[in-house]
This record gives sequence, structure tokens and C-alpha cells, in this order.
Amino acid sequence: MAYRMYDLIEKKRDGKTLDKEEIKWMIDEYVAGNIPDYQMSAFTMAVFFKGLDKEETLNLTMAMTESGDTVDLSGIQGIKVDKHSTGGVGDKTSIALAPLVASVGVKVAKMSGRGLGHTGGTIDKLESFPGFNTSISMEAFLNQVNDIGIAIMGQTKDLVPADKKLYALRDVTATVDKLSLIASSIMSKKLASGADAIVLDVKCGSGAFMKNYSDAKDLAQEMAELGRGAGRKVTAFITDMDEPLGLAVGNALEVKEAIDTLRGKGPADFTKLVMELAKAMVCFAGIADSEDEAEKLLKNSIENGLAINKLKEFVKAQGGDERAVDDTSLLPEAKYETEVPADKDGYVLGIECSEVGTASLLLGGGRLTKEDVIDLSTGIIMKKKKADKVEKGEALAVIYYNDEEKMKVAAERLKAAFKIGDVKPDKNDIILGRI
Amino acid sequence: MAYRMYDLIEKKRDGKTLDKEEIKWMIDEYVAGNIPDYQMSAFTMAVFFKGLDKEETLNLTMAMTESGDTVDLSGIQGIKVDKHSTGGVGDKTSIALAPLVASVGVKVAKMSGRGLGHTGGTIDKLESFPGFNTSISMEAFLNQVNDIGIAIMGQTKDLVPADKKLYALRDVTATVDKLSLIASSIMSKKLASGADAIVLDVKCGSGAFMKNYSDAKDLAQEMAELGRGAGRKVTAFITDMDEPLGLAVGNALEVKEAIDTLRGKGPADFTKLVMELAKAMVCFAGIADSEDEAEKLLKNSIENGLAINKLKEFVKAQGGDERAVDDTSLLPEAKYETEVPADKDGYVLGIECSEVGTASLLLGGGRLTKEDVIDLSTGIIMKKKKADKVEKGEALAVIYYNDEEKMKVAAERLKAAFKIGDVKPDKNDIILGRI
Repeated sequence: MAYRMYDLIEKKRDGKTLDKEEIKWMIDEYVAGNIPDYQMSAFTMAVFFKGLDKEETLNLTMAMTESGDTVDLSGIQGIKVDKHSTGGVGDKTSIALAPLVASVGVKVAKMSGRGLGHTGGTIDKLESFPGFNTSISMEAFLNQVNDIGIAIMGQTKDLVPADKKLYALRDVTATVDKLSLIASSIMSKKLASGADAIVLDVKCGSGAFMKNYSDAKDLAQEMAELGRGAGRKVTAFITDMDEPLGLAVGNALEVKEAIDTLRGKGPADFTKLVMELAKAMVCFAGIADSEDEAEKLLKNSIENGLAINKLKEFVKAQGGDERAVDDTSLLPEAKYETEVPADKDGYVLGIECSEVGTASLLLGGGRLTKEDVIDLSTGIIMKKKKADKVEKGEALAVIYYNDEEKMKVAAERLKAAFKIGDVKPDKNDIILGRI
Repeated sequence: MAYRMYDLIEKKRDGKTLDKEEIKWMIDEYVAGNIPDYQMSAFTMAVFFKGLDKEETLNLTMAMTESGDTVDLSGIQGIKVDKHSTGGVGDKTSIALAPLVASVGVKVAKMSGRGLGHTGGTIDKLESFPGFNTSISMEAFLNQVNDIGIAIMGQTKDLVPADKKLYALRDVTATVDKLSLIASSIMSKKLASGADAIVLDVKCGSGAFMKNYSDAKDLAQEMAELGRGAGRKVTAFITDMDEPLGLAVGNALEVKEAIDTLRGKGPADFTKLVMELAKAMVCFAGIADSEDEAEKLLKNSIENGLAINKLKEFVKAQGGDERAVDDTSLLPEAKYETEVPADKDGYVLGIECSEVGTASLLLGGGRLTKEDVIDLSTGIIMKKKKADKVEKGEALAVIYYNDEEKMKVAAERLKAAFKIGDVKPDKNDIILGRI
């Protein structure tokens, strides 16, 4: 069936509903280059105003999912469980979570990205292990999951080309922040990645795309429904990103924190997040019948060194130097460090996440364009978090840096990020909700 | 001042107001090719939903007006008055109106287009006079107006390039039918054409872009305000297009009807329309102090043959065979004619204008793309109009054609266009309102 893009734009403009065939046709023709960007951008702007209903959103998601290669994980025995986070400052969750759940038997076949922003993506962070290779073949990837239960590779080029093209267009035409389009963008990639079950971590707060709980919950709900509509098991957590996650921000520094966490010595908030997500994954995989049972398995794995050993096994399998797990001086280290002192007594009322992220970016730890090279060694260790008592002159954070000028700008940003006052506030809960 | 198009899209998307500099920058950069179509189409879709206020619309209109060449009519003495119609079926108004007002001393320096649709534009229709040339130089155009008071030329290529580019984009992205964009598109061309005063004829009904009175009035109001905001005198008529204007539909047939009308023998509705528009133009030109006085002048001109002589003078000046005014067999004539008979007794309740237009197009009298060649000879003469009594077998219309197959399809359309019933309806008023 052939349609005219003009008619589809007009239909959406007038608030009507597009059917499955129309959406499929539109996405296929757009990827094939037969629908010009100027028509698609008019369409997405019409969607911005008139929305997509549940069925349209699912149809769009499925059409995008099918627009390129999809990963066939059927060669891996058992229930494959994936995790996705909407991203935030200090989010090193996958690096701890993936080996942890793999250590109790969950099959982790994960595709990940590099991403733009204050730090690199999971792929960049893993490259802190000297020699670590994420550009592996699909065959090697599948074999590794069958052998040791875990593999993480970079997204293949032809995964969801519709989303790549559409996202790039939305990014320059002010149509990114539309819930249904965000949800279908994320979920099409997850669905194409082939997992049977998906655990979603939707961040909420000053360091997240979703600034308030209501928006984050709506996104979580929409994504969960899309996943379920596509026949996958899905659970979605709404988690705090109003201050950085854990204490470390910066690639190698975050890897160290993930290592600490797999040894049971991680920061409380990050440990709790990893544990909650892990419990859900373990249950989805059918390894435990309840989350309580899952928790026992996971705690045992950490206490008995199974979790940290799984990380070593994983690093080694992908060509990385697994000795760095025990001797973290083998990870990239910045030349200098300096403290950012408090200039008055009081309590930390809050930490402006985006300022911490910008500080990390300015130190060289993130990229703004795909071509930028990341300095994996730089970053920030938070010494104080919300509700902590602080004395004048005491360190709020430590900056790890290689360039004096960059450090100075980052230090200014960091200092400004901390709000200090007299009345002790409540600590933030890391888990805000679940769907 | 430089802006980012992204920010302007976002601003409009969020319902904010763009200032004069932002709009000027956007239009200039768009014409220069520095803003891609996909951003402009997202912007126009945002405008579709969020609108442009009066000031934004005027700023857009002025920015478009100034985007290319503007015509300097200062070399012509007196007040230059232009007329614009939003177009409809059987609209040959300019061909009668321009010589009529010129015959009483109004300076008519008119640019006109070819247009797409059921018949050609004014330029095409004028080419029914053998040898008539509308591709004349600006110098010849101005000299002719000074010599004989009237000249009509094709629009120069560089007149309002912003509108050409923007309209073409809106046309394929479902953002044409937005009042402020329509008004600025029309008025930018009129303003760039240089007249001091403008008489607008906004058509209303089944054969017009504006289907109902309220929309037509809004468009008339918006255009009048834009013209006045740009310092021109403007009056706007809202006129009936719920049935074809006059009796003739088709290029040479319409020219004949215009000739009849300049001799005082035109159809009542068309004659009245031409007279009302002419009165307004004569008053704007300062030739009469009241419309009553203008009417006397115009009637005298028709009765004494000044009007028809002005047409001859005009046709001759532009290289056309002026003998065709007296001997219309010199105009293109179709080979065959046939009647479309009524299949029952009754009264004509209404005539579906767009069906009549389509019939004309199918006969070869119009074009769908710029490259189509028009058959100037074909068309339709209406024998019955709304409220006329009709007997079974009596002719509703006569088709003038060169191709049997095309005639058959057109005849079907024409027959279907007539609604015949038992109760005599009121005749339509040709003038519905004025602003």
C-alpha cells in the first residue's frame, strides 16, 4: 500500500489517528530516503501538538524496531534480561549491575552506546580497562554470553536506523521533548536488541531529562506499556537524579566505584540502586521466585567474591586487563588532584546535578560531539552529599585533573553546585517509584 | 544580530512571540539557503498551531516583501491602484476591470501570474489575444502605464523569493491553510508590486479557498490590516464564489465575457462585481470624491465606448491583435460544442463550483503543474445559474471542446455539479461584505 506523506502530515495535524500500515509505510520510506526531512519535521511538529495515542506509539516503536537489523538472542539459553537507564550524572550502574546479575546466572547480552554528555557512556567507561574491546562480532558476542553469561558490545550500525535519522532531525527542530517520541526512540532500540525482559531505570531530578516525578512516571509508564505491547516483560523504576549517583563522576573513577560496589563497599545510594535493579532482573530471569530470595542470592554473591570474579572474567573475555580490578592503579589516573573546600559551615541542602556534570565535561571527561576524545582519567569524587554536615574549609569534593585551567573552571562550577544552609534537610531516597 | 533557528522554532512552539529582527533574520537566512527546509517546515507547523499575532504577521510580510526586488512605480504620475483576487471559478475580473478603470484615468500598473488550477491566470487569459506579450521589460511596462494608463506584465522572477520558497514548502507540508501565512503570502507580493492603494476581492464559497463567510472575512480583515500597516490604502470585498462568476469558464471564453461586459452586455453578477471594485479603485485614485460619482464616470465610459477602446489600446500596446476585441472569432475557438441537458424539471438549487472547475481543467483549460500547456479555446458557458427555472432536456451548460473523451468526462462532472429541486431558492448576492 502506498500513501502520500502530505496526507499523513495533514491527518496528524488535524488530530486524527494514523493506522499501523500508514506508520510502517512512513518509517520505511523515510529510512529509504523517499520522504524528505522537511516533511518528516512537519510531521513530528504536528505530533508535538497533537500527540500519538498508545496504539500509534506502539506502531511507531515497532516500525522503528523493524527498520534495520534486529538481534537474535535465541542462540543463548534461558531468559535474556536487559537494563536501560535514561542517564544522569555518575551513572555507572551497568558496570556493577551486569557482572553482579551474571554472577548468579542471569544471561546478560547487552548492547550499549558511547553517548554525548558529561561523561562517556558504558562503552567508554569499560575502555578504562586497558585493552578492553567492545567492537566484537555478533558471533563472538553470543558465544561469550553462552560461555560466561555476560558480554557488552557497542551498538551495531544498522540497529534501528529510523531512530538515528529521526532523532537527529528532532534534535534540530525542537521536537525532542515529546513523551511518546522519547519512549518510542528508547524502546525501539531495546526491542531491537532482542532481550526477553527489560528493566528500566528512569531518572528524575535536576540531573535528568525528566525534572519532576510526574513526567518521569509518565515516561516510565509509556515505556513499560510499549515493551509489554511488544510482548516483553518490563518493569520500570523511577530513581533519584537530583544529586549525582554515588560519589564518583568521571569514567575511570566511576569504574573504581563499581568495583568497590561489587565488593560490598560502594556508596549506600548506588549500592541500593544496583541491588533493586538486580533483584528485578534475577526474578525476570526465573532464577529466584521472589525479590527477597533474589536479594539473598545477590548478597551472597558479593560476600563470597562471585560478583567481583565475574567482573574479572568479563573484562578478560573482552581483551581487557583484569588485573586492574584488584589493582586500580592500572586504570587511567589523572596527574593531579585538588579539593574544593566549603566556604561556610552548615548542611548540604542540595547539589545542582547539571553543574557537577558540566564540571566533569569541562575537565575532559565527556564529549559534546561524536568526534571529541574523552579523557578517561579525570573526574570528581563527591565528599559531601545532600544532608551531610560540612565545616568551613572542609572538602566538598575532590577534582582529578590534568589541566590547571580546566580544573579552575570546573572548581568554580562545583562550588556553585553545592547549596549550603543551616537546617538539615532529609536525604533523598534513591528509589522514588516503580511501575 | 545572529540567532539560532532552533531557538526560534522552540520559541514559536512554546507560544512565544518573535520580534521584528528575529523574523527578518529568519526570512533572509532562509532565502540565502542558510536555514534548511526541515527547520522551516517545523517552524511553519508550529505557526499552524500557535499562530502569529498581528505584529508578527506584519513583520513577516515586510520581511518577505523585502526579500527580493520591489517595484518602484514612482516614475508613474498619480496614485497607483492595484487589485487582487483570491481566485475562483470563472474569475476574469482583471480583464474587464483594468481597462475600465484605466479608461477613466486610474493608472493600472499590474503584475499578474499564471497560476495553477481549473483555468489559467490573467496572464494566460490575455494570451488569448494573438501576439499578446506579457514578458515585457520593467522600462516598457512603466512607459506604457505613463502613455496609455495601463500595462499588465508577468511577475518578475525576483519578486518576493521568500514567498516562492516558503509557499512551495508549505504546499508539501500541510501548512498552507493558516490565515496569517496566507495573508502574508498574498500581501507581500502586492506590497512588493509597488501600488499605493490595493483593492482586495476575497472569494467565499464552494469554489473558493475560503468556504464560509466568517473565514473569508477574517482573511479580508487580516490582509487589509497588513496593507494598512505597511502604509497602503486598502479596501477588501468579500464576494460570492458559491457558483461560478458570470457565465463563462475557460480562458478565451472568459475574455469574450470580459469584452461583453466592457460593452455593457455582461452577466449581471459579474458586471456588478466589476463595477463595485472599479468604484473603489477610482475613489482611491482620487478621480472621484464619492462612489456615486465614480459610478457615473464608469457607466459613461462603458456607454460611450471609452472602456472597450481602452482594452483595444491596451491589447495593441502589448503586441496583441486588437481586432479580436471586435471580431472575437480571432480568439482561440474550440472545434466542437455540446449541450449538457437537465434530466428533470425544477429550479437550480446550487452549482458545485469545484466540479465546474474540474470540468474546465479536464477539458484542457487549466494546468496542474507549471509545465502543463493550456488549451485556451476550451471551456464552459453556463446556461443556468442558481434560482433559474429549468425544464427536462433544456441545456444547463454548453461545453466547448477539442477532444471527445475529455468532453465526456467533463459533461459527467458538469451534470453532477447542478443540484435541481422543486423549491425556488434565492439568488446569491455577489457582494457579501466589505472591510
